[in-house]
Order: sequence, then structure tokens, then C-alpha cells
Amino acid sequence: MDYIKDLFEFLKIDTTSAKGRGEEGAKFLVDYLKDNGIEAKIIRHKAKNPYVYGEVNVGSKKTLLIYNHYDVQPVEPLEKWNSDPFNPVIKDGKIFARGVGDDKGTLMARLQAIIELLRENKLKVNVKLFYEGEEEIGSPNMEDFLKDYSKMLSADYVLWEGAGKSPEGRPEIVLGVKGLLYVELRKKTPKDLHSMYGPIARNPAWDLVYLLNKLRDEKGKVLIPNFYDKVVWLSEEEKKYLRTPDEYLAKAIEQNVPGNSMIKLVEEPTCNIDGIYSGYTGEGSKTVIPSLAFVKLDFRLVPNQDPQEILSSLKRYISDPEIEIIVHGSVKPYRTSLNSEIARALIRSAKEVYNEDPVVLPNSPGTGPMEMIARYLNVNQIADGVGVDNYSSNIHSFNENILVNDYYKGIEWTKSLLRHLGE
Amino acid sequence: MDYIKDLFEFLKIDTTSAKGRGEEGAKFLVDYLKDNGIEAKIIRHKAKNPYVYGEVNVGSKKTLLIYNHYDVQPVEPLEKWNSDPFNPVIKDGKIFARGVGDDKGTLMARLQAIIELLRENKLKVNVKLFYEGEEEIGSPNMEDFLKDYSKMLSADYVLWEGAGKSPEGRPEIVLGVKGLLYVELRKKTPKDLHSMYGPIARNPAWDLVYLLNKLRDEKGKVLIPNFYDKVVWLSEEEKKYLRTPDEYLAKAIEQNVPGNSMIKLVEEPTCNIDGIYSGYTGEGSKTVIPSLAFVKLDFRLVPNQDPQEILSSLKRYISDPEIEIIVHGSVKPYRTSLNSEIARALIRSAKEVYNEDPVVLPNSPGTGPMEMIARYLNVNQIADGVGVDNYSSNIHSFNENILVNDYYKGIEWTKSLLRHLGE
Repeated sequence: MDYIKDLFEFLKIDTTSAKGRGEEGAKFLVDYLKDNGIEAKIIRHKAKNPYVYGEVNVGSKKTLLIYNHYDVQPVEPLEKWNSDPFNPVIKDGKIFARGVGDDKGTLMARLQAIIELLRENKLKVNVKLFYEGEEEIGSPNMEDFLKDYSKMLSADYVLWEGAGKSPEGRPEIVLGVKGLLYVELRKKTPKDLHSMYGPIARNPAWDLVYLLNKLRDEKGKVLIPNFYDKVVWLSEEEKKYLRTPDEYLAKAIEQNVPGNSMIKLVEEPTCNIDGIYSGYTGEGSKTVIPSLAFVKLDFRLVPNQDPQEILSSLKRYISDPEIEIIVHGSVKPYRTSLNSEIARALIRSAKEVYNEDPVVLPNSPGTGPMEMIARYLNVNQIADGVGVDNYSSNIHSFNENILVNDYYKGIEWTKSLLRHLGE
Repeated sequence: MDYIKDLFEFLKIDTTSAKGRGEEGAKFLVDYLKDNGIEAKIIRHKAKNPYVYGEVNVGSKKTLLIYNHYDVQPVEPLEKWNSDPFNPVIKDGKIFARGVGDDKGTLMARLQAIIELLRENKLKVNVKLFYEGEEEIGSPNMEDFLKDYSKMLSADYVLWEGAGKSPEGRPEIVLGVKGLLYVELRKKTPKDLHSMYGPIARNPAWDLVYLLNKLRDEKGKVLIPNFYDKVVWLSEEEKKYLRTPDEYLAKAIEQNVPGNSMIKLVEEPTCNIDGIYSGYTGEGSKTVIPSLAFVKLDFRLVPNQDPQEILSSLKRYISDPEIEIIVHGSVKPYRTSLNSEIARALIRSAKEVYNEDPVVLPNSPGTGPMEMIARYLNVNQIADGVGVDNYSSNIHSFNENILVNDYYKGIEWTKSLLRHLGE
């Protein structure tokens, strides 16, 4: 097996799901699995780009499900690329190609590690491979698939699509996600008014300002009653793995950051204004008392906050009956214990391969469908790691790349992880 | 002189200043003045539609300057009109035509009254007639004109374009205007951020919310220090003329109103959100920490608040150096005393003609250039009244109309006013 040659064959296939491409990528994968002695099949279900499913049963009591996706983001603007995105090249120790960072590189590094272990007869844990072709268009059919194929996909641990290196270059492990509650608050009056009516007319924009001021204080604390009741604050041990220096985060967001910002980023739930609108927003001036004001808010929730409970608290808290509350999204948070087998195995294997402590996020600051997976597959150990990308990989952008060295490290990390899980 | 026939001739002329029309209207006026024995001329100065100026010197010690405008708003959408806007008709006791309410009707009613008094040798006060042709496009050349023609226009009293009937059908007199300070507050950060950075990133939208909350409380009180220091609150006598029932105002704005709303409307300065914007304002949801937030605010100011002083207080009060303050407009408030000769004459003549107490607004809740006129013409009695329109006149809209009866009343009111001023 030629690691890089095989990876390049895969990278050459245009699997841009937003353009309806992907079939050829699925076919490549199922053939690659079969050619390397792994039972595999294509499952279409409701998806346009089919799922690819492979299974290696070595008779272990434990099974690891590995999820990756073979589809990629559109490459446009093409003129910004220094090389053809579907003709991978190596330059300055890096591989450049669409998808090499997200998610084809990680998919292949993990797969090649499994094939090697199989050949060497060293695989001590059952492995299920689950490849999606619609991740970059928002996984519109995933929930239905999980529902209908929960038995096939059942496992003791799930390894998600891949987390590569942290901003400071350490291996990164992610054990969960934040949840989300996305709401829009709207207030209307019968009509726009001349602003001379200011002394006697309600202005919905002012009413929203007062309401928002009661939702969150200037330090970022959310003021909805009971909001923090179910928050599971990080343990000292969890915090130890979050020593990323503040300067890396300050650089990432191009703003000053508070102290312990990596811990804050992971631990704190938030209420964020995504957008606000009322009245005249064009050039110069127009005087008006607007008849409509709305704000879009996302709450990033941490374990064990429940978006439905937070929504109920919010509804009770908003005393103005004229405020309309529209819910645009709701995702539960999820966290796998630092003491779980998969977390321990990921940490030990990362140390072994990289010779340094990994950064371990008890949950990502972002949101993902981990809770949904846990629910449908009835599994309580879901983690991410063993990725080949880094913070300069230009994922979703032009000149997407990974370090050649990180690709080999990805193979090593997978092998080490599977050894530790099999112990 | 046939009142209505002459009015109709004037109404037939399309003087839509926004479409560059008006010249013909000015010519009609200067001819009408001359034909009726009034010295008159066209003055172009910097305006596209020229000014028309007329003068009647009866040897009085006192001079009244009467301002009106001959231009009109565009008539579109034409299909909403029940008759040709430039072919006046009388139906159900009303005259329908563009400009009959704003401002050709009032112009002609006043002028015909003067012509009659002249013929009857009963005019006891000098009169200057000053007609503009660019009012409906914002009087872009007026200030320069006032500057250069201040001597020609000098007077003891100024009667502005016309205030017709109040919502409850009583004659309305307006003795001043509110001032205005229009500012835009903007805050920027280097870039939009993924909203997962909520726990550590500043969000300019939140910063604006906190700032706005410090500018005005939920009862409408402005919280900028010294904001109310120079407010001249209404006297009991001034309040007596403001007994318009709350229900009329509630109907006008289609909202509930507080008690004494007519008094509040006139007396209270305000801080109003005209528009606010940040981040994602489209359909559905997008999570983002926006990099830009701005709000547009107008402060309606009452005598003797000074917009420049209020701006200075605002700047001192906003402690965040990253808030950019852009000034879009500044107009000083103005108020003529209820005890002035013009106010007394307007009130007495209104009672005489209508047999009921007029509504007298010490200042309009809206803004206008009265202070500028007072400054350039060195006059301290400026008032509005003697208008022929009412609250159903559809000014600036389709089917613009006045009551035929109010047209005759307008002539009577002018005659009565001039008699009282000449005493």
C-alpha cells in the first residue's frame, strides 16, 4: 500500500456535494475497502450521495464506529488556488488539494492504519466505518439514516470526523459539543410613525433594547432565571488540558481576550446577538418610529443545559406579551467523560505519537450533532481527534493543505488509539 | 374676483418640484399679484424654481411676512386618484386636487383676503409675500436666500405656510418647532467571528444595546446628564390650549397613548431610535458575532435646548472610545411667546371666525427652520396658522382635498388676522 499515492487517487475525485457530485467518491471508497479485505457496501437510503459502510469484526467485545465524510466544499474562487484543487501536489512539505484537510485526509489516514493493523493481525477491536457524502450541505438526511440504521451502526465508542492540531500546534481532542438554542424575538406595531410622536408612542426598537439588556449583562452573564442551574462546570483535571495561551486565541479573533480564555471558551454558555434590525438602516438620516424590530439570538449551551428548558425559562422571563418568539434551532449539548475509555485512549495515544500533552476540550465551543448520535446509537462515548489538519489548513477555502508529516502522524495516531482501545 | 375659479386656475398648473416643474406656477403668481395691484417680481437666486416676492406697503409701522410654497409633491401612484390631480373638482363639499391642502389652497386663500382688504382700503398692516418653489424637495437653497435677502424680507411678524384644523376639527395655531439632533453611533471590530467565540469576544451589537440602555429609560426619560437643564416647561396658560382628547392621538398613531398626550407631545424632548443594524438580518438563522453595529438616533429638542450642547453632553457621556459618533443633522428649537402680538391676533381671529377656542401649540412636535428664519430676518414672532387643510386632507398622498367651506374660512381668518395685527 502506497499511502500517499492512494490518498491522491481519492483526492482527485471531485466530490462537491453542493454541485451534486459524490457518487464516484463513494464508489472509490467501497472498492478500496473491498480491495483491502474489508466488507463494505453502498447504502443509498434517502441521501443523494450514498453512505459507505464497512465493517471489520475481529471478535472483540468492543466496537469502535468511525465517522468521516467524503464530500467536499466547492472550490470557488478557483483563481485563488495556486494549483488545481483536484490534482494534489506536494510543496514545502505540504499536500495541497480540496478536501485534504476536511475530511478526505483524515478518512484515508485512519483507513490505511486499520488496513495495516488488519494485515499485521494486530487489530484488537471491532471497527465500523461510516462515511457520509452530504456533510458539507448540512447532513440533511443523517437523522433519518441514524434512526433506520441504528442497529447496524451500534458501537461502544464513536470517533468523529477529526480534530487536528490546536492553534499552538499540539494534538487536539474534543470530547463533546455545546448545544444551541436559536431564537428570534420580534415586536411590531400597526405602522411606522413620524418620529415627532416620540413622547407618546411605543418604539419596538427601544422595547427590544430594554429586553436585551435584561437578557445579558455587560460581563456576558446571562440573566434569565435558572439559566446556569444545570451547568456542569469543568473539573480541575479538565482545566489542566486547556492551557492554550491567551495570545493564540487573541490572534485568532483579532481582539483582546480575558485571562483563561481557553477555559472560558469551553466552559461558559453564552447568549449572542447574531443580528438585529429595526427601521432605517441606509445612508445618512431618516426620522421614523419603526413599526418592526427583531433580534436573532443564539444561546450556546453546555452540559447539562437543555434547550427546551432554557426556552421555557426565556418565555416565562419575557413579560411583554407583544414580543413574538420564533425558534430557529435547538441542539442539545454533549460531553464524554474525561475518564471514559475513549478519552483515555485518545490522550495516551496522542502523547505516544506526538511526545507532548494534547489539548483536550471537554466540549467544543461550537455545536454538533453528538447528542443525536448518542441518542440513536445508544452510545455514551463519542470523541473527536486523530485528524490530519491544522489551524492553517484553509479548510473550506482556497489552497487547502495539510503537512505531509501530519498525514503520517495521523496514521500512527490511529494505530496507537486502536491498540489502546483493544487492551 | 372669483375665489374658486382663480384657485382652480392655479391648481391646474403642474408644479411638481421633484420633476423640475414650477416655472409656470411662479409666472402665474407674479401675474396674479400684478393684476391685482400688488408689486411683485420673480427672484431666481440659486433656486431652480424661482422665488416670487410681493409687497404691499400701506404705511403701517408693522410688517407681516407671509410665507407659502407653490410647488407640490409628485402625484404617483396616479391610479389611486379618483380624479385628475391637476384638474380640480368639487365633490361632496370638498375640492380635490394636488396641492390644494399643501400649500396652494392656503396660499391663495390668504392672497385673495389681502387683495379684498386692499380693494376695500381696509389693510392696516404692511404685507410681504414670499413664495418658494422648492419646499417639497427640502428647500435646498433657502438658507442662502435668507442670508442674501434678509433686508428685503425683514418684518415684525412671520406667518408660516399654514396649519389647518386639529384632529378634533378646531383651528390650529403653531408658535414654534422642536429642534433636532440626529446622530449615528457605530462600533466595529476587525472581523465577523464564529459565534462559538462568544465567551471571550466583544460583540458590538451587545455594546450598542448597553449604551442605548444608558441613554433612555423605559419611561422615555433621557439619561444623558444635563439633558433637561435648559428645557422651558409649558406654563399653565400654554397647557390650557392643549386639551385635545387623548383618543384623537391614539387614533392617529394606532397605539394606546398616555394621559395628557397632547401636552406631552409638545412639551417633552425625546431620544428616538430611527434605525438599528447589526449582523445577520435575513430569513431564518445564521450564527455570527457581527463586526459592525450601528444605531441612528434623533433627539427632538424643545426650547431652550441647544443641539450642540446636547451633542457635547452625549460625547462626554459615551465612555467607550471605540464608539464612533457621526452627526447627520442639527436644528435649533424655536418658540414664539403666547403673549406675542401675532399669537394674540391669531387666537382672537380664530375665535372670531370659528366661534371656538383654537388649539395652540407653543411648538410643533416636529421640526422646522423657524430658528433659522428668526436668526437671518432678526424677527422674534413667527407663527403658523390660517391654513385650509385638515387631518383628512391626504397631504402628500392621493385624493388630496380640503373642504370648500374651509377655503372660505381661510379667507375670513386671514382678513380677521390682518385686522387684529393692524390695530
